Amino acid sequence: MSTEQTPEARAVLDRFHAVIPAGGVGTRLWPLSRAAAPKFLHDLTGSGSTLLRATYDRLGPLAGNRVLVVTGEAHMAAVCRQLPELSDSDLVLESEPKDSAAAIGLAAAILHERDPGIIMGSFAADHVISPEEDFREAVREAIFTAATGKIVTIGIKPTHPSTGFGYIRTGEGLDVDGAPSALAVREFVEKPTEEVALGYVSSGEYLWNAGMFVAPVALLLAHLERNQPELHAGLTEIAQAWDTPRRKEVTDRVWPTLPKIAIDYAVAEPAADAGDVAVIPATFSWDDVGDFAAIGRLHNARENRNLTVLGEGARVFAEGASGIVVSDTKRVIALIGIQDVVVVDTPDALLVTTKEHAQKVKGTVDALKASGDVDVL
Amino acid sequence: MSTEQTPEARAVLDRFHAVIPAGGVGTRLWPLSRAAAPKFLHDLTGSGSTLLRATYDRLGPLAGNRVLVVTGEAHMAAVCRQLPELSDSDLVLESEPKDSAAAIGLAAAILHERDPGIIMGSFAADHVISPEEDFREAVREAIFTAATGKIVTIGIKPTHPSTGFGYIRTGEGLDVDGAPSALAVREFVEKPTEEVALGYVSSGEYLWNAGMFVAPVALLLAHLERNQPELHAGLTEIAQAWDTPRRKEVTDRVWPTLPKIAIDYAVAEPAADAGDVAVIPATFSWDDVGDFAAIGRLHNARENRNLTVLGEGARVFAEGASGIVVSDTKRVIALIGIQDVVVVDTPDALLVTTKEHAQKVKGTVDALKASGDVDVL
Repeated sequence: MSTEQTPEARAVLDRFHAVIPAGGVGTRLWPLSRAAAPKFLHDLTGSGSTLLRATYDRLGPLAGNRVLVVTGEAHMAAVCRQLPELSDSDLVLESEPKDSAAAIGLAAAILHERDPGIIMGSFAADHVISPEEDFREAVREAIFTAATGKIVTIGIKPTHPSTGFGYIRTGEGLDVDGAPSALAVREFVEKPTEEVALGYVSSGEYLWNAGMFVAPVALLLAHLERNQPELHAGLTEIAQAWDTPRRKEVTDRVWPTLPKIAIDYAVAEPAADAGDVAVIPATFSWDDVGDFAAIGRLHNARENRNLTVLGEGARVFAEGASGIVVSDTKRVIALIGIQDVVVVDTPDALLVTTKEHAQKVKGTVDALKASGDVDVL
Repeated sequence: MSTEQTPEARAVLDRFHAVIPAGGVGTRLWPLSRAAAPKFLHDLTGSGSTLLRATYDRLGPLAGNRVLVVTGEAHMAAVCRQLPELSDSDLVLESEPKDSAAAIGLAAAILHERDPGIIMGSFAADHVISPEEDFREAVREAIFTAATGKIVTIGIKPTHPSTGFGYIRTGEGLDVDGAPSALAVREFVEKPTEEVALGYVSSGEYLWNAGMFVAPVALLLAHLERNQPELHAGLTEIAQAWDTPRRKEVTDRVWPTLPKIAIDYAVAEPAADAGDVAVIPATFSWDDVGDFAAIGRLHNARENRNLTVLGEGARVFAEGASGIVVSDTKRVIALIGIQDVVVVDTPDALLVTTKEHAQKVKGTVDALKASGDVDVL
């Protein structure tokens, strides 16, 4: 792009830092995904990369090594194995989960301490996106738009009236240099009913909210301070101590006291009400791999096969069977005459269901939790 | 029964020895049943007893400790653990499988050497029968009938026009003391088509051939000699050496040379043609547990539940699921929204199919064999 060639554009793009919140167990993908081995640590697409690694690589051409990963202490070792490029200063560890406003807000506050001019982009570690170049082009537009003083979300053009996502209602074009697609955001709306979703899609005015956003850290923190002053104060205190010997002492004292709130409520929605949010409509295909049916869809689209088999060294014998098999063991798996089945085979737990019931896996995990069978969760 | 009370009847019953051929892998019950752990070593009914143990116990009141078990050398240890009552002289080990005529014929020849007056009864180690007292009453009638110089099979009154069993065509009543049910056998017929089976069932003249028979060993061997002189000669040579120090030398030399043939062709069918076969029609329920659907049927009949779970310490969580789960591991198994499923979970192999396709398991085992994946067979 020509905008990349100018020194001014280059200076804007160089302000970009990526933040990857790597949390969320992915309960609907149990027993593959679980507390000790959450979704982002798995290769769910058969690409050879885990979702976390793929997210990091997707951002590489834009962020270089300017990447901060926010994750739980329990996952530090696995994250470092996946991303050996990370230095100590690229890792933010949570001693206990505090929801997205604290996780992303701490990353913003730390980056702000290091350089208040940084434009950060936050991208979940467990989404599947292609083609990558379209993604990066959308992020570039978002960076240029953020540089004009906006919190910029990347909205996905709906392919169907999903009731599983929130929507973004778009407004007028913003006429930003280097970001011809940028639109104002009128409001964020919660997951709709199917009827409402149909109206959204046919209006052409709404996009899926994929939870991706790009913003100047100073602006993000300003909104956080206005809406969640207590949280902002705590995060600022931790951030000021972060790159000093006092990090552990301050974090141990302050982090447990912070309120749990989603970034949508703490920042995005009030910022939209204030007219400070823009959106880049994106055309790349995006999937949050919400359940095993989604894994089957991702593979079927690519491989045009009835039976998707995931897992290194999987030994699957199928006769008249369709669906998805995830093999996390070396066992022989024989499937005979069964359609749209979901089989997930792990060393200590086995799931057998159908694509149609894939969303109900969460309920089973809740039931196991209630029964005390937490060793396999 | 009054017949049991007379010294004459007692003397006849005392001639009875049971023979339990414990062979047959039970391929349709893979991966539970397999070469190293065949069907008869499993508790498929949830009774707490393996099929072999249940067979032994069912015969106990009639045979006492006059029981010979014929099995492969590979299963000796498992059989002895299941039946600690067996002495060395109660065990006939095959160095390689030679089909039923050799296995049962050797048992007959050994018993004949020990006492030519013995009446033997042969009962597969992997069938499920109830009520036991009805079974024993049928065997008693068979013993009294055998004592009149007959090979006596026990035929099962068909409950439906099965195409999976051979049939026995019955003839006139035989008027045997102590065996009021005894009938002549006109012929054995192979597994019929469904149309033919319907005719058999509606005629009232046909019974299922369950492979159980009772016969004087001398008569059985006479028919074997007439029809398979080479086999008879070899078995006689082994039997004469059996209870001597020469057993191993003679067996090692002769057994591998013996022809493989089923007892049906070698003895039962030609004996029927000669008018030497009788049948006791039995009313007990009988199941050869031919596949996993059969296991489900056996349990459903008793427990009136949609989901049958087999396996000590099974940890099964089911929501909206029906069918059968066999757990041979301690893994958690979650079933969600899947009907008539068959899940068999073993340490090195997993089967997922439906009751409808349970018969096809044999084909999968054949495919595994062809592909060289014999470690799990």
